Amino acid sequence: MKAKVVSDKGVKIIPLGGLEQIGMNITAFEFEDSIIIVDCGLSFPDDEMLGIDLVIPDVTYLKENIHKVKGFVITHGHEDHIGGLPYVLREVNAPIYATKLTMGIIENKLKEHNLLKSTKRKVIKYGQSINLGCFRIEFIRTNHSIADATALAIYTPAGIIVHTGDFKVDYTPVFGETIDLQRFGEIGKKGVLALLCDSTNVERPGYTMSESTVGKTFDNIFAENNKSRIIVATFASNVDRVQQIVNSAQKFGRKVVIEGRSMVNIVTTAMDLGYINMPENMLIDIEQMKNYTDDQIVLITTGSQGEAMAALSRMASSIHKKISIKPGDTIILSSTPIPGNEKAVSRIINELSMKGAKVIYQDTHVSGHACQEEIKLIYSLVKPKYAVPVHGEYRHLKRHAELAESLGIDKDDIFLISSGDVLELSEEKAEVTGKVPCGAILVDGLGVGDVGNIVLRDRQHLSENGLIIIVVTLEKYSNQVLSGPDIVSRGFVYVRESENLMDEAKECVNDALQRCLEHGVNDWGKIKNEVKDSLSDFIWKKTKRNPMILPIIMEV
Amino acid sequence: MKAKVVSDKGVKIIPLGGLEQIGMNITAFEFEDSIIIVDCGLSFPDDEMLGIDLVIPDVTYLKENIHKVKGFVITHGHEDHIGGLPYVLREVNAPIYATKLTMGIIENKLKEHNLLKSTKRKVIKYGQSINLGCFRIEFIRTNHSIADATALAIYTPAGIIVHTGDFKVDYTPVFGETIDLQRFGEIGKKGVLALLCDSTNVERPGYTMSESTVGKTFDNIFAENNKSRIIVATFASNVDRVQQIVNSAQKFGRKVVIEGRSMVNIVTTAMDLGYINMPENMLIDIEQMKNYTDDQIVLITTGSQGEAMAALSRMASSIHKKISIKPGDTIILSSTPIPGNEKAVSRIINELSMKGAKVIYQDTHVSGHACQEEIKLIYSLVKPKYAVPVHGEYRHLKRHAELAESLGIDKDDIFLISSGDVLELSEEKAEVTGKVPCGAILVDGLGVGDVGNIVLRDRQHLSENGLIIIVVTLEKYSNQVLSGPDIVSRGFVYVRESENLMDEAKECVNDALQRCLEHGVNDWGKIKNEVKDSLSDFIWKKTKRNPMILPIIMEV
Repeated sequence: MKAKVVSDKGVKIIPLGGLEQIGMNITAFEFEDSIIIVDCGLSFPDDEMLGIDLVIPDVTYLKENIHKVKGFVITHGHEDHIGGLPYVLREVNAPIYATKLTMGIIENKLKEHNLLKSTKRKVIKYGQSINLGCFRIEFIRTNHSIADATALAIYTPAGIIVHTGDFKVDYTPVFGETIDLQRFGEIGKKGVLALLCDSTNVERPGYTMSESTVGKTFDNIFAENNKSRIIVATFASNVDRVQQIVNSAQKFGRKVVIEGRSMVNIVTTAMDLGYINMPENMLIDIEQMKNYTDDQIVLITTGSQGEAMAALSRMASSIHKKISIKPGDTIILSSTPIPGNEKAVSRIINELSMKGAKVIYQDTHVSGHACQEEIKLIYSLVKPKYAVPVHGEYRHLKRHAELAESLGIDKDDIFLISSGDVLELSEEKAEVTGKVPCGAILVDGLGVGDVGNIVLRDRQHLSENGLIIIVVTLEKYSNQVLSGPDIVSRGFVYVRESENLMDEAKECVNDALQRCLEHGVNDWGKIKNEVKDSLSDFIWKKTKRNPMILPIIMEV
Repeated sequence: MKAKVVSDKGVKIIPLGGLEQIGMNITAFEFEDSIIIVDCGLSFPDDEMLGIDLVIPDVTYLKENIHKVKGFVITHGHEDHIGGLPYVLREVNAPIYATKLTMGIIENKLKEHNLLKSTKRKVIKYGQSINLGCFRIEFIRTNHSIADATALAIYTPAGIIVHTGDFKVDYTPVFGETIDLQRFGEIGKKGVLALLCDSTNVERPGYTMSESTVGKTFDNIFAENNKSRIIVATFASNVDRVQQIVNSAQKFGRKVVIEGRSMVNIVTTAMDLGYINMPENMLIDIEQMKNYTDDQIVLITTGSQGEAMAALSRMASSIHKKISIKPGDTIILSSTPIPGNEKAVSRIINELSMKGAKVIYQDTHVSGHACQEEIKLIYSLVKPKYAVPVHGEYRHLKRHAELAESLGIDKDDIFLISSGDVLELSEEKAEVTGKVPCGAILVDGLGVGDVGNIVLRDRQHLSENGLIIIVVTLEKYSNQVLSGPDIVSRGFVYVRESENLMDEAKECVNDALQRCLEHGVNDWGKIKNEVKDSLSDFIWKKTKRNPMILPIIMEV
C-alpha cells in the first residue's frame, strides 16, 4: 500500500542551524505556502568564539517568509532543540507544539524572557496529529535521555517524512513505555519518502544500554557507601536519572536535596507534571541538611560536565556557599564528558579527590542516543526511499550514509546536506535546489549579533599576544610632538621586569616619529603605520611575539 | 635476602615538575651530597595559559644545589621526559645518561639549541649500571610507545628504588624484546624500598594490547584500500608504529613518503641508529610522488592529534604546499585523542571527510602505558615496601593508591606526593619532610618566565571582553581638556553597528571628566578611576559586558 501522494512537486527540507555541528537543531519543512519548523535549538560557543555566551540560529529565511510559517514542532526539551526559541520567537512569532514535559520546560524559558503571554502553545500527546497548513504532523513515542521525547511523521503532499528526533530504543524505560516501534512499522508500510534519523552514536556498534541499568548501579553504590554522604551530579534535564536516584534514596532511607538552578527548575517542573515521583517528606531543603547525618542524605546537583559556574564546580573549588566537600563524601558523576569537556571534568575529579572525597565516574551513565543496531532497526521498520542523516558532525553523517547504504539504500538517495541547503524531495526526484541565508548568531551579554568576525579576530589576537598602546599628542599644523609618546601595555609582558624592553620600544617609536617629521609626513594614517610597523618589527626581533599595536594620535 | 642498606638516613625523592599534571616529568633523588635527576620534560599550556608556547619546570632547587647534581638520567625520548633539557641545561649543566635512541633524539634537540658541545652525554645499554655520587643506577628494559624505553633501579644507601618510567608489558614487541620481567623479579627478591610506577592507564582494567596488533590492522586496511593513496598520521616518536607502516607498505608494494618536520627528524634519527628498518629504494622524497600512481604511495605524517600547524591539519584545510587531499584518499589516524584534543581531532576528521577522503580512526592505535593487570604484575615482581604512584593526574594517583592497597601494601606506606614535596624514605620511616621551590615557568616566544599571572589574567580579560581605550589631553595646571576624549575599542563590539553606544559612552566619559573638573579633582589617578568606573557601569548596564577599560591622560 502506498501513501497518497497528491502532488508531483517536491517538499523542501531546509536545515537552518548547521547540521555539521552538534548543538543547534532547527529545520524548516516547506511546501508551497506552508512552512513548519522542527525544533529551535541553541548551541554553545566553540573554542574560537572567545567571550561568547551562546550561539543561536540565523532565521532570516523564516522572517522573509513569515506569512508561510505555521508553527514550531518540538521533539524534546533539550537546550539544543528548544534553547533558541526565546530569541527566534521575537522575530518569528508562531505557535509551539510539543508534548507535556517538553512544553513545561519551554514555558519556564518563556517566562524568564517574558514571552509566555505572547506565544501560543499547544500540548500534544503521543499518537495525536496536528494540521499545520498543508502538513499533518503525527507525534510518535520514542525513548531518549529526557522523558516525553517524540519522533514526527510529517505527512506532506509529496509523501511522508519521518523525523526521529534524538532517540534510542529502550525496552525497559524508567518512565513511560518503549519507543512505538509498531507505529514506525505501520507508517513504513504506507511508504515513506524520507527518513531523517539521529546520527549521534552512529560510530558505536551494538545497542545503547537501557536507562534502567544505571538504577542498578546506583543501588550498588548506595549499598557500598552506606556511611557516606552521597552527592550525584548529572544533567538537569535527565529526569529519569533523577527518578532513579530518588528510587535508590528511598530504598536506602535517605532524604533528597536538589541543588543547582537548572536542576531545581527542571525537577520542579517534572514533579509538577508527574514525570518524577517523589515520595512524601523525602525532598528537603538544603538548609535542613544540618538536621540529618551524612548517611541520611543524597544531594542531586548540576555540574557533571565540569561547567565552571555549576554547583559541583563551586563545591570542588570551595566557593559553594552551602556545601563543603569533606573526606568520606561519595560523589557520583553520572554522565560522560561531552567532547571538549574532558579536561574540565578531569579537573573536577582531581579537585574533589584532593579534598578526600571518593569520586565514582565509570559505568554510571548510559547514552540517550541510538547505536548502530538501533539505527538499523528504524531503517528496517521505516524503509524510506531517501535517507537524510541528521544530528551529528559531518563525520557522523558520513558514517550514517555508509550505514544506510549497507542497508540497501541507493547511494544517490542519501543526502548529506549542510545548513541553508534546500533539499527538494518527491517520489520522482530529489536534489538540492537552492541555498537560503543561514548561520550562527553570537550572543554576548545582552548583545545579539553585534559580535562578528572582526571582533572575534581581535579577541583572539589580544588573548595570545596582548597589546601595546602608543599615545602621542601632536600640535596641529606643525605636527610637533607636544606630549608622549607614552607606551601602555596589557597582556604582553610583566612590565616591571621588562623595563629595558619598554625603554627601547619608546626609543623605537621616537625614531619613527622623528623620521616622519623629517620627511614632512603629515598624514596621520601614514604616521601611525610607520610607528606601528617599526615597533612591530622591533618587538618581534626582541621577543618573537606579535602583540596588537595601537597607535593613537591626539591633536592640540 | 635483603639488599645491603648502609645508612639509616633516608633518601629524598623530590618531584619538581608537578605530579598532578601529566606532561612534565622531572624528579630529583637526593642523598647527602648527591643529586640525580630522572627525566627533564616540558609540558604544553592548558586552556588558561593564553598565548603560551611551552611550560618548563622551575629548577631553582637544583640551581641552589648545583654542586650536588651528578647528572640527568633519562627514561625515554618523549617530550614530556626530555623537552625541558635545552632550557634546564642552561642553568644546571650536568651530564646526560640515556639509551641510544633516546640520546639520538636528545642530541637533535641540543643541536637546535646550540648546546651539543657544552653537554656531556653517555649512552647506556640495558643491564648496564652507572655510578653517580652515592647512587648506582641500573637500566632495565621495558616496552613503551617509543623504542629504547628503560626503567631504573636506583641503588641508594637507604635501599633500592625502582622507577618504571612510562611502560607497558608487550610480549610481542615490534622492535627489540619484552620488558625484562626477570630482572624486575630478581631485584624484587633483593628487597626494594620503593616503587615509582606509571599511573597513566590505572583506570583501565585488563592488559594493554601489543603494538604488533596494529600492524595486522594496517595490513587489512592496505588490502581493502589497494586502489587509494594512503596517508597515515601518527606520533612522530612512535618509531615502532612507523616501522609497521613501512612493513605494510613493503607487503603491498608502496613507496613511503615522510612528511612533517618532527616526523622527518625522528624517523631519520631512528633509521640512522638502526631502530627503523627501511628497505632500500623504498623511501622517496615528497617531490617524487608525482612519478607514482596513488596505489603506489603511502605517506606518513604528523598531526594525528589535530595540532593546528602539523602537516595533516594543513592538508585538511588546504594550506599544505605539496599535498592536496582528494576524493578516494584513505587517511588513517593512528592515535587516540589525548584529553583536551578531542575537538581538534574531530574537526580534522570532518574536514578530511568533506574533501571526500575516507578517514579511518577506530581500532588503529594501542596505548603505550600499562593497564591494571600489568601494574599488578610489576608490583608482584618488585614487592616494594613503599608505593609512590607517578605519571598521572591526581585522579590517577589516587586510583593507583587504591590498587596498591588492594595488593597488600599498607595504606601508610603509599605516598601521593605533589610537586616540591620532599619525601624521605628509609627502612625505618617514610615521611614528607619538607618543601622546595618548584612550579611551572611559561615560555612565550623567546621569553622564558616573563609572562606571569598578571599578564595571563589580562589576556583572559581581553579575550572574553575586549577593551576600550579612552585618551584625553589635559592642560598642565588647569586640567582643562585640550583634546579628546577619544575612544578606541578592540574586541568589544563591531563599532560601525554600535555608533550610538559609542557616542553615549563618549558622553558618559565627558560627564565624568566634567565632574572631576567641577570638584577640583587634580589627581590623575582619581580622574582615571572616575572615568573608568563611570564607563564600566554604563557599559555593563547597556550590554552586560565587562571590557577592560584603559583611561590614558596626556599632558601638554
